[in-house]
Amino acid sequence: MIRLYCFEHEGVPRHAAEREGTWRLVEGDIFGEWSEGPEIPSEGARVLAPVQPSKIVCVGLNYKDHALEQKKPLPEEPLLFIKPSTSVIGPGDPICVPSWAGRIDHEAELGIVIGKRAYRVPLQETQDYVLGLIAVNDVTARDLQNKDGQYTRCKGFDTFAPIGPCVAVGLDGRDLSVRAYVNGQLRQDSRSRELIFTIPELITFITSVMTLMPGDIISTGTPSGIGPITPGDSVTVHVEGVGALTNRVVLQ
Amino acid sequence: MIRLYCFEHEGVPRHAAEREGTWRLVEGDIFGEWSEGPEIPSEGARVLAPVQPSKIVCVGLNYKDHALEQKKPLPEEPLLFIKPSTSVIGPGDPICVPSWAGRIDHEAELGIVIGKRAYRVPLQETQDYVLGLIAVNDVTARDLQNKDGQYTRCKGFDTFAPIGPCVAVGLDGRDLSVRAYVNGQLRQDSRSRELIFTIPELITFITSVMTLMPGDIISTGTPSGIGPITPGDSVTVHVEGVGALTNRVVLQ
Repeated sequence: MIRLYCFEHEGVPRHAAEREGTWRLVEGDIFGEWSEGPEIPSEGARVLAPVQPSKIVCVGLNYKDHALEQKKPLPEEPLLFIKPSTSVIGPGDPICVPSWAGRIDHEAELGIVIGKRAYRVPLQETQDYVLGLIAVNDVTARDLQNKDGQYTRCKGFDTFAPIGPCVAVGLDGRDLSVRAYVNGQLRQDSRSRELIFTIPELITFITSVMTLMPGDIISTGTPSGIGPITPGDSVTVHVEGVGALTNRVVLQ
Repeated sequence: MIRLYCFEHEGVPRHAAEREGTWRLVEGDIFGEWSEGPEIPSEGARVLAPVQPSKIVCVGLNYKDHALEQKKPLPEEPLLFIKPSTSVIGPGDPICVPSWAGRIDHEAELGIVIGKRAYRVPLQETQDYVLGLIAVNDVTARDLQNKDGQYTRCKGFDTFAPIGPCVAVGLDGRDLSVRAYVNGQLRQDSRSRELIFTIPELITFITSVMTLMPGDIISTGTPSGIGPITPGDSVTVHVEGVGALTNRVVLQ
């Protein structure tokens, strides 16, 4: 397995490929042709969001335990919503919460990073369109979600889509641990085998509606255990094989 | 008033500025410095979408008559949803409707094209962030809207966001006629003075949540008279001062 990071290198964003702790510069385009260049030190590197999605397509209520927690029936089809590109931040960037927005929740999720333009992809070909897996925190203003009904405002604030820390290429997503920690305390703890709609099913479903571009992310939904975060908290989404995505919460 | 078109010129997309029927090539960037170059003929030019929005932020239920038609109370705040960049098409491009999606409706709307990066814009400064006005057809799969509750899938299909035919710069948006025609028959007919939330209010509200990028569009909502379109139909959104945006409906 290779983990693709983006980091600041001599003042510009560059990708690096990590295998067993060794980092090498990526020469070329991670969505096209690339090769591994010289080894570089990873210490002290400022890690950035590994991709710049044009959109994140999220799935509501895709874990049986979370559906139960929300007292909602299991969905017949995936329920989609979009987080805009402007909501994306990287590891270590602050989640900025407006004072007027009410309760803000963490939602730990496994994300799928699309590797090439995908439209109407048959179930058996979906793997060809996946670059790798990523951790996503689907930060949600819960009071506004309940008020609006639509999920756009409550999930679309700038900084409400931390992604990272890397794209894990060649990782099997069928049974990975997905966890959230707030200030080091475990709050969400499930496994991707609990997904109601699987990774191939989501890719086929979403691309029957809209084109996914290279770097776009499908966020597969959150398990039970969602809860509030407040300014001063440190929140971590941990996806097995991908790693830990940690962000502080600050008052805007 | 200047109308900014995008069209295919010697095989590449170029902007042109139209004043009183005379077209001149735009030299430079319509979001930055630009000037008017040589006069060009407009006949036979293939007109394209005038901008490439990273997102369209739409407003539900923003005309009093449409709220009445949908039997919904007037909203206290704008209700937001997003159409992704992949849904955008230009004048003359086909609206492709899947056979399985049920009833598809036209929704004629006045759109605002953002001219520069906009975040937390005070009410009195909103005009500085507007490049101009545009016509939008917020094509909607009505059956899926009712089924999902969320508006993402029903409004997010590829080709479900025709925009154009131009960006009208310097046009006062406070009282413009907004119309839809299907096969030449008038179906929607209202004026932007009927908006519940005005253009400045929408810009301030949306940018209190998310950053709008140059070229992003706010679609201000649709008046009463929404109705179905089916393959073979020709649908036109006409906004006074902007012009007519016409697209055929085809079965995908």
